[in-house]
Amino acid sequence: MIKFTEHELKIVKKLEVLKDEAGSHSPSIITFRQKMPEVAIKVDACFLSNPYATDLFLEYFEAEVLNGAKIRDLLESYPSQNAVIAEILADFLHIDASHIFIGNGAIEIIQAVVHNFTEKKIMINIPTFSSYYEYVKEGVEVVFNELLREEDYGLDVDRYISKVREQQPDTIVLINPNNPNGAYTRIKDVQRILEELHFVKNIIVDESFIHFAYETENYQLVSLSHLVDKYPNLIVIKSMSKDFGIAGVRAGYGIMNASYVQKLLNNGYLWNSNGFAEYFFRLYTREDFAVRYDKVRIKYILETLDFIQELKQLPGINVYPSMANFVLIELQEGIRSTDFVAKLLIGYGIYVRTCDDKIGLKGQYIRLASRSRMENDYIIQSIKACIEMNLVLEGVNETAG
Amino acid sequence: MIKFTEHELKIVKKLEVLKDEAGSHSPSIITFRQKMPEVAIKVDACFLSNPYATDLFLEYFEAEVLNGAKIRDLLESYPSQNAVIAEILADFLHIDASHIFIGNGAIEIIQAVVHNFTEKKIMINIPTFSSYYEYVKEGVEVVFNELLREEDYGLDVDRYISKVREQQPDTIVLINPNNPNGAYTRIKDVQRILEELHFVKNIIVDESFIHFAYETENYQLVSLSHLVDKYPNLIVIKSMSKDFGIAGVRAGYGIMNASYVQKLLNNGYLWNSNGFAEYFFRLYTREDFAVRYDKVRIKYILETLDFIQELKQLPGINVYPSMANFVLIELQEGIRSTDFVAKLLIGYGIYVRTCDDKIGLKGQYIRLASRSRMENDYIIQSIKACIEMNLVLEGVNETAG
Repeated sequence: MIKFTEHELKIVKKLEVLKDEAGSHSPSIITFRQKMPEVAIKVDACFLSNPYATDLFLEYFEAEVLNGAKIRDLLESYPSQNAVIAEILADFLHIDASHIFIGNGAIEIIQAVVHNFTEKKIMINIPTFSSYYEYVKEGVEVVFNELLREEDYGLDVDRYISKVREQQPDTIVLINPNNPNGAYTRIKDVQRILEELHFVKNIIVDESFIHFAYETENYQLVSLSHLVDKYPNLIVIKSMSKDFGIAGVRAGYGIMNASYVQKLLNNGYLWNSNGFAEYFFRLYTREDFAVRYDKVRIKYILETLDFIQELKQLPGINVYPSMANFVLIELQEGIRSTDFVAKLLIGYGIYVRTCDDKIGLKGQYIRLASRSRMENDYIIQSIKACIEMNLVLEGVNETAG
Repeated sequence: MIKFTEHELKIVKKLEVLKDEAGSHSPSIITFRQKMPEVAIKVDACFLSNPYATDLFLEYFEAEVLNGAKIRDLLESYPSQNAVIAEILADFLHIDASHIFIGNGAIEIIQAVVHNFTEKKIMINIPTFSSYYEYVKEGVEVVFNELLREEDYGLDVDRYISKVREQQPDTIVLINPNNPNGAYTRIKDVQRILEELHFVKNIIVDESFIHFAYETENYQLVSLSHLVDKYPNLIVIKSMSKDFGIAGVRAGYGIMNASYVQKLLNNGYLWNSNGFAEYFFRLYTREDFAVRYDKVRIKYILETLDFIQELKQLPGINVYPSMANFVLIELQEGIRSTDFVAKLLIGYGIYVRTCDDKIGLKGQYIRLASRSRMENDYIIQSIKACIEMNLVLEGVNETAG
């Protein structure tokens, strides 16, 4: 059991209220700072993003927008319409613009797809990103496919296909790599799912973390989005917040059959990108940026691999396999995840996500993001200290008892 | 008839294609510049915003965000959730947070309200902002209430109430001041509408241009939003793009009954503000900003009054009464609005909105925004030159014919 001083306990209580108010997501860092000024956050390890990509984006943004005096244009003028931005992406992605839907973050695309195209029944793997079941309209049945602890919360493809055949949902969702555990399903296996489940109306593959996954030695990018022509029921959803480190910009896109894009644009989603998102999308498709981005992507993957390796060597925690930029960690018996998170926050200024609200996880879990190498080192040292203190306390308790 | 050279005619053709692609809205200035590099825009009089408010916002933004190094936070971190931003606005607006819904621009709120709460029949005044009828879901009947040219496209309140009683729509929309003509309905008249039409499920009052209207000598702000407690069917929608000159930021809010806000947030709209919008919303509620903003608001109203006065003195055009930051102008017989717009653009670099796609307007109309005093002067001179040239050409034609 983790011990708190009286002062710390007050903060713990406040934290619980704040988390409650934020529902099934963490409060944003801005909200957090406003409401908890007594806690200084040194490392935001709740936030799943590549900090080196943020550096790179900032470098361009400063040179071209701030110093180039384009800032007024971005703030003052209406951004381009959805279909215009889709056109910009089309060449770069080698996908026809008619298949591309631009979103105010991936979450708007999740909402749009689930509100408009899910009719009766959706099947979702758990644990998962909660919006997929929270956003369904009234009357839609939600079926959970439980990923198993004994299988490291990975996807058993055969069992998955059987369950879909049995349940006959009109929509299924695969987050790949999955959130909150990072388990990755190889492209050939997802393709098998697409082949066998051609009867499912909507197969959503959420590739928000796919830039951190790889299947080759040189960490080449993988994606299913080019298959949208072959599988008209495939909907690929892509957040740009994580891989490019720009959550505040709100940018995402969906690749889906052209009739869906048309249906969405026919009565909405006209100016849903802001000026900064449009600047980002234009930058994203530029060769000079793309080349440099791929370098920081791989650098971050390598550092994340080191981080996970070091975490695995710590006693008292179980680190689940991940191909994303975060890991799911199970705490040893006797440590409550909320206490552990509070201790890391109050004692070390590290903001981490507790997973005690995640359906499908039984036990005490936290989700930990990989940050910069320096921050990762600090996280490792802090977790180590936390665990050791707890082990010592446990020892004292046992001796005393 | 306006004459074009062969070179100009090619540009006119390209302009028509661009306008067609943009549907019922104008292409954004960014899209425009990308696709029509041969045309240099000097003044964007299509864009309905207060440039002095943009100046003021930029002053704060530069001092606090750019120089204060907060820019990384805004770009990198997730913004606060919808309900958190609503809380920030609540105190400032003296409206309970439970009534406030934050939107990614007003257009997202229009979409959300019309998609979720309009069931069978919507009644819309025309001419109007087209999204109100474009965004209705399949199966919803749209009834138009035609505003009359002989009444300067103003609203006759008695006739309006009668028509609503007769048609029994579940949703009615009043844009006040109206777009594209700027006609204003006084608050006491709108209140009469609310009193008499208590049986209508949703009464949307779009106050996106209300900061340019006034009923007192000191130009005091007017609004209906404080009446949301008294009229549970009232939905006030407010864009921040026009009055604050920040369309690229995408910020708007809706004031409506708490059950509607809850219903919307229950399955969506969680992180629909970007970091820049959140910065704006926080600034908007600050006393120091509010005081300075009100000064530039009134300065802009006064200059707009001068602008309209000068326009009215030009021959060959009819300027309709407006309490917004733009005017609807009817061109004299023989001048096609698309030609006039093309001539202003190619000959003078002035980008103006043609209204030939606006349902409810019969004749040749353009909508002209008020900009800075210097730009307004240039617009006046250019329109004058355009009209005189046309009058001369007409004279030549008549003499020749």
